Amino acid sequence: LDYQHVQVPFEITLWIMLASLAKIGFHLYNKLPSVVPESCLLIFIGLIMGGIIYGLNDRSPPVMDSDIFFLYLLPPIVLDAGYFMPSRPFFENIGTILLYAVVGTIWNVFGIGFSLYGICQVRAFRLQDVSLLHNLLFGSLIAAVDPVAVLAVFEEIHVNEKLHILVFGESLLNDAVTVVLYKLFRSFCEMPTIKSMDVFAGVGKFFVVGLGGVLVGLSFGFTAAFTTRFTKDIRVIEPLFVFLYSYLSYLTAEMFHLSGIVAIIACAMGMKRYVEANISLKSHTTVKYFMKMWSSVSDTLIFIFLGVSTIGENHEWNWPYICFTVIFCLVWRALGVLVLTFFVNRFHVNTITSKDQFIIAYGGLRGAICFSLVFLLPEFHRKKLFIAATTVVILFTVFVQGMTIRPLVDLLAVKRKRESAPTVGEQIHIRFLDHLLAGIEDISGHWGQYYWKDKLEYFNSKYLQKILLREYDQPKSSIVLLYEKLERKHAIELAEAGQLGHGPAHPSLLGPGFLCSSDRTVRTDQKLEDAQNPDVLDNMQEILARNLYRIRRTGPAYNRHTLPGESEPSEHAQEILILRHKSL
Amino acid sequence: LDYQHVQVPFEITLWIMLASLAKIGFHLYNKLPSVVPESCLLIFIGLIMGGIIYGLNDRSPPVMDSDIFFLYLLPPIVLDAGYFMPSRPFFENIGTILLYAVVGTIWNVFGIGFSLYGICQVRAFRLQDVSLLHNLLFGSLIAAVDPVAVLAVFEEIHVNEKLHILVFGESLLNDAVTVVLYKLFRSFCEMPTIKSMDVFAGVGKFFVVGLGGVLVGLSFGFTAAFTTRFTKDIRVIEPLFVFLYSYLSYLTAEMFHLSGIVAIIACAMGMKRYVEANISLKSHTTVKYFMKMWSSVSDTLIFIFLGVSTIGENHEWNWPYICFTVIFCLVWRALGVLVLTFFVNRFHVNTITSKDQFIIAYGGLRGAICFSLVFLLPEFHRKKLFIAATTVVILFTVFVQGMTIRPLVDLLAVKRKRESAPTVGEQIHIRFLDHLLAGIEDISGHWGQYYWKDKLEYFNSKYLQKILLREYDQPKSSIVLLYEKLERKHAIELAEAGQLGHGPAHPSLLGPGFLCSSDRTVRTDQKLEDAQNPDVLDNMQEILARNLYRIRRTGPAYNRHTLPGESEPSEHAQEILILRHKSL
Repeated sequence: LDYQHVQVPFEITLWIMLASLAKIGFHLYNKLPSVVPESCLLIFIGLIMGGIIYGLNDRSPPVMDSDIFFLYLLPPIVLDAGYFMPSRPFFENIGTILLYAVVGTIWNVFGIGFSLYGICQVRAFRLQDVSLLHNLLFGSLIAAVDPVAVLAVFEEIHVNEKLHILVFGESLLNDAVTVVLYKLFRSFCEMPTIKSMDVFAGVGKFFVVGLGGVLVGLSFGFTAAFTTRFTKDIRVIEPLFVFLYSYLSYLTAEMFHLSGIVAIIACAMGMKRYVEANISLKSHTTVKYFMKMWSSVSDTLIFIFLGVSTIGENHEWNWPYICFTVIFCLVWRALGVLVLTFFVNRFHVNTITSKDQFIIAYGGLRGAICFSLVFLLPEFHRKKLFIAATTVVILFTVFVQGMTIRPLVDLLAVKRKRESAPTVGEQIHIRFLDHLLAGIEDISGHWGQYYWKDKLEYFNSKYLQKILLREYDQPKSSIVLLYEKLERKHAIELAEAGQLGHGPAHPSLLGPGFLCSSDRTVRTDQKLEDAQNPDVLDNMQEILARNLYRIRRTGPAYNRHTLPGESEPSEHAQEILILRHKSL
Repeated sequence: LDYQHVQVPFEITLWIMLASLAKIGFHLYNKLPSVVPESCLLIFIGLIMGGIIYGLNDRSPPVMDSDIFFLYLLPPIVLDAGYFMPSRPFFENIGTILLYAVVGTIWNVFGIGFSLYGICQVRAFRLQDVSLLHNLLFGSLIAAVDPVAVLAVFEEIHVNEKLHILVFGESLLNDAVTVVLYKLFRSFCEMPTIKSMDVFAGVGKFFVVGLGGVLVGLSFGFTAAFTTRFTKDIRVIEPLFVFLYSYLSYLTAEMFHLSGIVAIIACAMGMKRYVEANISLKSHTTVKYFMKMWSSVSDTLIFIFLGVSTIGENHEWNWPYICFTVIFCLVWRALGVLVLTFFVNRFHVNTITSKDQFIIAYGGLRGAICFSLVFLLPEFHRKKLFIAATTVVILFTVFVQGMTIRPLVDLLAVKRKRESAPTVGEQIHIRFLDHLLAGIEDISGHWGQYYWKDKLEYFNSKYLQKILLREYDQPKSSIVLLYEKLERKHAIELAEAGQLGHGPAHPSLLGPGFLCSSDRTVRTDQKLEDAQNPDVLDNMQEILARNLYRIRRTGPAYNRHTLPGESEPSEHAQEILILRHKSL
């Protein structure tokens, strides 16, 4: 038996296997996941496993390594989040999200830090040795809402899209603030004296870390899109580039001490549209599937490890400090949301209701990021107290808040996500209004959201698409692509139902039936991009009337780099003129 | 800049990126891959990179780590090979393949080992210090044909299926022999005296290593199939199990010093059929795509690393030894193939022609396995000579034989792979003959190939399928599945051509057009498995007449573990009765 030799891959594989089997186990009992969020169940499994390891070995089970978390477990989840981010609601609410993420997080950090320092001054609690700076450092790591925890809970409760994007967007973008404040306070702790210069440098760093992350992400995203222009002959490695470039963007950002999370999100959102157009349908299925799979496994592993790491002897218990941490986390967040929303609502017509505010405040879950950061703290005599407080806050938010948020949403009758996606008709009207508003803004000289969106769209179709898309001029309007897609989907459904040949021949361009999932909404949105452009509209009519004219691609015969069935058997390009609408 | 922190994942990602970009580069110039095999180009890139590293650092570039090769790079390639193995030709020729793999490899090992020992006795060559045992050890690592190299070359030249499976099957299955002989001679080298007992133990080990590998592989394969029975509610992690279980089978086999390659092939071949039936269509696409992608990248990395590792100062040059190694490798292989084929042809009606024999002998390429094994040798004073000889043999076989084999195949007019796949009619006749022959064998009391195949099929449908398949009794005959699949494919093609609604309504069950790629042949084959079973045939007629009756699956609303579009919007199960054939 030679276990040493295979230990590393074997144990990794076994952990992943355990996580996957745990997931299957939960879903076998349908009732369980509807009451308890999966994250709680996973932490619970972790606790049991930690207990077993502790009992058998009589020493603390290994804690989750921060490097493993930040380098291997976090990126897949953030990539998935960024890639499937509904871009319209995100950009519509970007101002509010940034306000919550930047100002809100700073508010929380200082609020929690200063009030905990106040608690430390009470003699009876025996905490006088915890300095203000240490409290602020602790505040900076405990203040950040965790995207993994938020995602795990919010995707199960289906609140309306705006509320979801506010909480989720905040949890993603506050990473830049957390990184800066955490590193700032940590370096302050190690410095003998702090000059006012350093504080200003810290403020400047915000912009560097955040915008730098966006820049790194976008440049990798566009490179990825550009690379997929040339993968036509070697479809099988297309999905790889999506993963490689986004991972590289994350690592590069981390290397330069920028925000890796922001970078990978910018990369994913930047490349999505072009990559989707360049790669084959099967590659795209693989990309989506693997992303979901990876993030799902990472997420499972994180919660199990959280549970395992909780057991052990690295905690210092101090009732007042821990209790007040939990209370301050709740109070300052609630206050922050109230104050910030007050300002947000003054400048918006579509206000955030008080119910929504409550859910935003209540949905501020903490998770594995805090946990990893607290273990990364430099050694000092109260580190174990901080670890204990962080663990309690995480368990409290995930278990208590995570389990009660669903009944609360029901009780308050918070507006839910609409079940059916908007019809194509609605989509066209939304798009139409966008153009109208852009025009009004342009005339009135007000450079608002719609104006910039319009300019960006112009820049995109004028320059970016020409560089990044392989078949830029082939599909004249993206509505043709949508049409093709609907036809294909319709055909598969007909075939599956066995009605091919006499089913209704119109793909339901007009009916809502075929646009059903939330993701498609966004993509339809994109496809209808330039549908209002007048000459495109003319063109479209004509194209739809003549129906699609398409040159079949030819592939080489069997070859190692293509999957069977991907290439057509015919050697010569054959043109297919379509006569369907004529026949109607 | 904090490079240390991200170094490991960053460099791995960059290497993979380099490999992928190199692949894209080759395919941009269409003419290059048709003349030079990709493996040669990749080694060439590796050589250049190695030269650059050597020139810049003035020390040898890092050699490929044997652990990385055996634990991370080899498994994906073998998994891909096993999963896409055409099972019918493989099992039809299993006797011949085993003869080549076991007896042929032993023949080569001893032939090369003893004749090199003879060369070492020539005083002028100054090689008297290389003992017989060391020569045999060297013979054991240089004798094995490499599956990676063979696959890379043979998949580009499209020889007939039998020839392909003979060379490729041999290269895969000789792993068990190589492992045993290599370890045996290595332990002999370290032992003071060798007893005859040890030699017998070595012979016994063959069976343990080979059959143990098969057993480990099959048990993991069946467990994987069984696990996928329960993934209905959580489709997104289905592909994971295919990879996890097969990797575990490899690692477990390696851990027990069994043949990992044999294990992973057995695992892949064992689970394929059941997993395919259990998982969703999209999961299956992902599995296939990712397998191809991974093996493609691994393969690229191996050849690049081979090139990089060649440059450097770890070679000891001895002209006679190296030249005679190359010559003996060629001569003994040619002799071995001639002698073994003579015996094989005496017992078979469908003989191996002399042209085929030449290609089998000539296709014995050596590759990265030899290279990793030679670096794993225990330190002794002539190790560098062995490394040099191995490198030359690999480069000679890959470059000279790899580049000339295609012209030779053309010149000799070796029978090629038939371009079009057999029609369904042909398939049914093949299947019919199988049953007939099984019957004849049964009556005549001769327990041959067909008899066992029939028994296995019976066992499979009687027991295995009931345990391993989720919806065992739903599709009564697998021809219905084929029919569904053809319908779906047909529908997509119609939709893409825009002819939906008035195209020919029959999927071409009778025409050859839709069965085009080599892979599908095998799968069709499988689907038609029990088509001859009389009551199934009755049933089939009825089913096809009534057409498909299918209960739509319902999924939960949007949820983190499913992909959009996978679940139907309708909440209630709806039954769709199909009236198509009636209407015809």
